[in-house]
Amino acid sequence: MQSNLFWLIPAASLFALGFAYWFFQRMVACDEGTPLMREIAQHVREGAMAYLKQQYKVVAIVFAIMTLVFVWLAYGLHLQNKWVPFAFLTGGLFSGLAGFFGMKTATYASARVAHAAHQSLDAGLRLAFRSGAVMGLVVVGLALLDISIWFIVLNKFVTAASESQRLMVITTTMLTFGMGASLQALFARVGGGIFTKAADVGADLVGKVEAGIPEDDPRNPATIADNVGDNVGDVAGMGADLYESYVGSILATAALGAAAFTQAGQNENAFKAILAPMVVAAIGTLLSIIGIFAVYVKKGASQKDLLNALGRGVNLSSLLIFFASFFILKALDLPNYTGIWGAIVVGLITGIVIGKATEYFTSQEYKPTRNIAESAATGPATVIISGLGTGMLSTVVPVTAVVVGTTLAYCFAAGDWHFSSDNIGMGLYGIGIAAVGMLSTLGITLATDAYGPIADNAGGNAEMAGLPPEVRRRTDALDSLGNTTAATGKGFAIGSAALTALALLASYVEELKMAMLHAGQTTMEVANVEVPIISATLTQFMTHFEVHLLNPKVILGVFVGSMMSFVFCGLTINAVGRAAQSMVEEVRRQFKEKPGILKGEDKPDYARCVAISTVGAQREMILPSMLAVLVPIGVGLIFGVPGVFGLLSGGLATGFVLAVFMANSGGAWDNAKKYVEEGHLGGKGSPAHKATVIGDTIGDPFKDTAGPSLNILIKLMSMVSIVTAGVNIAFTLF
Amino acid sequence: MQSNLFWLIPAASLFALGFAYWFFQRMVACDEGTPLMREIAQHVREGAMAYLKQQYKVVAIVFAIMTLVFVWLAYGLHLQNKWVPFAFLTGGLFSGLAGFFGMKTATYASARVAHAAHQSLDAGLRLAFRSGAVMGLVVVGLALLDISIWFIVLNKFVTAASESQRLMVITTTMLTFGMGASLQALFARVGGGIFTKAADVGADLVGKVEAGIPEDDPRNPATIADNVGDNVGDVAGMGADLYESYVGSILATAALGAAAFTQAGQNENAFKAILAPMVVAAIGTLLSIIGIFAVYVKKGASQKDLLNALGRGVNLSSLLIFFASFFILKALDLPNYTGIWGAIVVGLITGIVIGKATEYFTSQEYKPTRNIAESAATGPATVIISGLGTGMLSTVVPVTAVVVGTTLAYCFAAGDWHFSSDNIGMGLYGIGIAAVGMLSTLGITLATDAYGPIADNAGGNAEMAGLPPEVRRRTDALDSLGNTTAATGKGFAIGSAALTALALLASYVEELKMAMLHAGQTTMEVANVEVPIISATLTQFMTHFEVHLLNPKVILGVFVGSMMSFVFCGLTINAVGRAAQSMVEEVRRQFKEKPGILKGEDKPDYARCVAISTVGAQREMILPSMLAVLVPIGVGLIFGVPGVFGLLSGGLATGFVLAVFMANSGGAWDNAKKYVEEGHLGGKGSPAHKATVIGDTIGDPFKDTAGPSLNILIKLMSMVSIVTAGVNIAFTLF
Repeated sequence: MQSNLFWLIPAASLFALGFAYWFFQRMVACDEGTPLMREIAQHVREGAMAYLKQQYKVVAIVFAIMTLVFVWLAYGLHLQNKWVPFAFLTGGLFSGLAGFFGMKTATYASARVAHAAHQSLDAGLRLAFRSGAVMGLVVVGLALLDISIWFIVLNKFVTAASESQRLMVITTTMLTFGMGASLQALFARVGGGIFTKAADVGADLVGKVEAGIPEDDPRNPATIADNVGDNVGDVAGMGADLYESYVGSILATAALGAAAFTQAGQNENAFKAILAPMVVAAIGTLLSIIGIFAVYVKKGASQKDLLNALGRGVNLSSLLIFFASFFILKALDLPNYTGIWGAIVVGLITGIVIGKATEYFTSQEYKPTRNIAESAATGPATVIISGLGTGMLSTVVPVTAVVVGTTLAYCFAAGDWHFSSDNIGMGLYGIGIAAVGMLSTLGITLATDAYGPIADNAGGNAEMAGLPPEVRRRTDALDSLGNTTAATGKGFAIGSAALTALALLASYVEELKMAMLHAGQTTMEVANVEVPIISATLTQFMTHFEVHLLNPKVILGVFVGSMMSFVFCGLTINAVGRAAQSMVEEVRRQFKEKPGILKGEDKPDYARCVAISTVGAQREMILPSMLAVLVPIGVGLIFGVPGVFGLLSGGLATGFVLAVFMANSGGAWDNAKKYVEEGHLGGKGSPAHKATVIGDTIGDPFKDTAGPSLNILIKLMSMVSIVTAGVNIAFTLF
Repeated sequence: MQSNLFWLIPAASLFALGFAYWFFQRMVACDEGTPLMREIAQHVREGAMAYLKQQYKVVAIVFAIMTLVFVWLAYGLHLQNKWVPFAFLTGGLFSGLAGFFGMKTATYASARVAHAAHQSLDAGLRLAFRSGAVMGLVVVGLALLDISIWFIVLNKFVTAASESQRLMVITTTMLTFGMGASLQALFARVGGGIFTKAADVGADLVGKVEAGIPEDDPRNPATIADNVGDNVGDVAGMGADLYESYVGSILATAALGAAAFTQAGQNENAFKAILAPMVVAAIGTLLSIIGIFAVYVKKGASQKDLLNALGRGVNLSSLLIFFASFFILKALDLPNYTGIWGAIVVGLITGIVIGKATEYFTSQEYKPTRNIAESAATGPATVIISGLGTGMLSTVVPVTAVVVGTTLAYCFAAGDWHFSSDNIGMGLYGIGIAAVGMLSTLGITLATDAYGPIADNAGGNAEMAGLPPEVRRRTDALDSLGNTTAATGKGFAIGSAALTALALLASYVEELKMAMLHAGQTTMEVANVEVPIISATLTQFMTHFEVHLLNPKVILGVFVGSMMSFVFCGLTINAVGRAAQSMVEEVRRQFKEKPGILKGEDKPDYARCVAISTVGAQREMILPSMLAVLVPIGVGLIFGVPGVFGLLSGGLATGFVLAVFMANSGGAWDNAKKYVEEGHLGGKGSPAHKATVIGDTIGDPFKDTAGPSLNILIKLMSMVSIVTAGVNIAFTLF
């Protein structure tokens, strides 16, 4: 009976993809508005697709090289099993497809949302949200499809010495397709993040500051690039990031579950434990669709009604999964299923707490952001100082939530409140499934995230097309709502990345185990005793590899991991600075060569600005991307397994805290500016406004480039270590 | 013969204190200049002493409470040995004395240096540097005195079951007086850092920006507070920080040496290994005095000659200790003394590399800082963005230097390039003695650090006393040189703090061992086997306590440690913001109530501004200080030894990288402003200048409050864990 539950997974996948297609068709059937609106939308669409095409070219080359490396490792050096190169490729392909469909939908939606807002606010909201839902459902649909296909294929073809070993091979192999998703996400997040902020900062510096024209003014040549950036960074980048967290957490949990139960000799339970995260995700997807339908507002709805409508959808899905996951686990008949359910609930709650904390620290409704705005009385320096201080302080809540949540999830699943070393396997499974719980309703949470940039672009389209102020007010209302959901979404993305990375770190040791067995090793030395690998405990593995905190290789790894987070951020921040500089120069050139542009008599060359951002982003992302891939390999080659564990822990801890700091400082500056623009402290044009605009500009690369890129870094470094585990076993310098 | 070498330590101490007294007397004998100069100096002196008095009151209360706790732990619960409360007290007392003497000297020197600069540049340099040398020599002199006294006392009175245990008790007890120094340093660095930047930022915001009067203008009521701040933060704070690193590294190394050799049953070598770091420090002190005498310039010296003169002194001392340490170790006849010497040399070189890297990333002579200045063309936002990006990138060199240096020091001392677990003890001893090597010439390096604020204050005095432009130019030259040495000094302070904290982390396990023996435990379980504690290896301890990176307690500790660094910075940064705000309001009040002040007809109330900064600093330092002490205790009580190890590693790695980032961003902004002021990019008063002034103001709390405070945090958390090791053994929640 339990294995019949498996079919829920492909079924949920097809459901999600089906609804996504239906939402897409209904959206495309809507009117795109005036010819000018169509033309603007067409510019943005072409720019976004041109960018994606260019990015996928780069990605294709990198994937080709990496595939060759994996083929060599698997078939040449026999350090990996033969499925890895293919698993790697499908992960990348499906993530790329999700980005393509999501962005296509977003760029088709913007003008239509602006046009719908012309009719009524609720029509605008519904269209924007359903278009966002396409992204959400495509991501979870494709992820579940990839998982289903591989599970069927591997379950059929993998043979091994024992059933327990077979299950371990299946799950650890599937985990490697997370590497494909991870690499794709790296390019989407880092490249997209650089593109969008280079365009945004460049457009603002030369448009708002130098030429004194408002945001989204069609006379600004960089304005189309700015709108393209929202799609490229916030839709495609965010989607790829969460696609990776989603598959990463499900597959890591499956591997941890297989390990925990096969180590205890319970193969049947191991199979159930593998299914559990997948089935929870599948049910969560179906419940997300129900939640999506619960998002509607009556005619004449207020701003607050809009927020409530979105909240209703997300809360409904969360509430339903709260109950449903209990019955799923009961139906699966896993041992200690109430404890495992407890871990799922903890994950759900942790996600909510992080989201709320993010809102508290970044929304102008609360004290922290208002304090930042008020410090504008003494100029920009105090705005920046207090934004940095507040961002650093704000790390307390998310980190504490993750620490407490992880502790509870571990203890619930282990059924043990003393962290006894016998139960580490089950405890880590609990941490993994907490991440799955947090991400189970990704279909709808990602819909609310993708809604933001769509509404933003609709506003841009309305402004550029010169729609009446009435429409602008409505698109502004939609956009403002999008800012709130985007901040919450960012916190959620970081929190889920941290939990996923933690699960990946834990499953790294399973890959090591497989690599040792694959290399023909059957026993290992633990405190001068030979222990069979297949039945060794996690503690024994850690003792064997000397992964303790007085081993200098571990400590040095921790240092390098912490440093990597900062260096990665430094590179991406400087990249934005440089790319924005090119944009400023291009816009200045256009203004100078065609003085008619600023008078509105001549048309600016939008495409050139898009091309400049595209080229800049592609060039600038090479170095950070290479670092993220090569440093874990390098540390593994030099310091071996202890070094890798240190690197991943240090990178995870520092990266997580740094990402929260950057996202929250950036979000708070953004909203401090909005607070002033709402008429406080002198309002638009006042010295306080100028001071907060400076804060907002600094926050741009913080919250939209460097911060989110760290989500990828912490997961990708784990993924790289996972797929190169065989190399770590075969060779180390020290 | 070897134990006769011990007497070098008290001898060096007395030498250092004697020369300090002599330099002080010669300085006081100099003319303090005009009555106005005397009066200003008197204001600064009184302000600084008022602050110190207030701070020592707070410190006295905290020390009283902590001493009671230690008495209770030692005599009530028997969780510590009976010497701990006294060792704790002397550490605090001696560090406090060093701060008092150093600051007294600095405040007596400033007007005299200004007056000497009236005569000639070289007279000014010599007086300023020799006054700085008082601080350097008092710090090392008192540290060596404290070490000598305790070593004699403990060596005489401690009895134990065996000689090896006796040596362990002596060294681990001495280590706890580092806790007193650490706590004193916390208040000096955090309180001093908040004071100085609250005064500086407040004075700048209301003076330069609002009233449009230049820096150090006597009409600004906050200007005396600003000058007091230099003494309080940069002299006393820096001195206490390095006093702590100095004693911490020597004592941790002694404990590690005792452990490494007694574990191998070599008690005689253990005694030599204990002496080695102390004797190296003693010889280094004597060589520092020689170096100090090598600092002189001829009449008519240029700016470059000044820098060369300082460099000559430091380089000479380093070169001499390079050779001398070899012969000391040879005389001690330690096994593998060439390897241990290698570790010392590695420490020396690591310090130089970090200093040079800091100079490269923060001096306007090089590209990074010039790039930041040039980004002022597009306004303050790009100055901040590029400063933050560059600061983050700049972490590569110091972290890599520490990673490579630590690796080399470990392998040299272990005499083994494969990190074999048998040699961990010797390897860690190598890391400790590398830190001692780095700090061995502290007498002169600290002199160059303390020179900076003295020269700065001399400039302030000259400005306020209205000395002729000729003198101002000379004091400016002295000040500018001080900026270069201050930046290098900051990098050195961070690097040595990181290495010291690493040595403290390693010696924590020795305290655990002593606590277990003290509690009457003689064996412990390691992988199901009972092992005698006295002869257990470090790897066995780590296995027993399950300090591996899949133990959730360790991982959660790492998260909390990383978070602590950010929260601590956030608190101190916000503290500066708030205290500066009070200062701004006070100055505005004075300007409003006495309009004569700005016209130069009425005298501002300097003392009130000093009082405001004092009260603000004392109030604001409570929360971060309590966190630094209570979090390690709390984590220990909840998660036990694995949690503490995680906390310390996470805090150390993140804190180190974060400190480098903040110090370098801040230093680079400061010098980017100076670069513009030198006439580049439009010079003083240009938009580029305004943009870089904003950067400089943001950099102030970065480089002088939050960044340096992290040095203390990473050492103090280790120290707290070391002195509460007995508690960790006796009780944990999980």
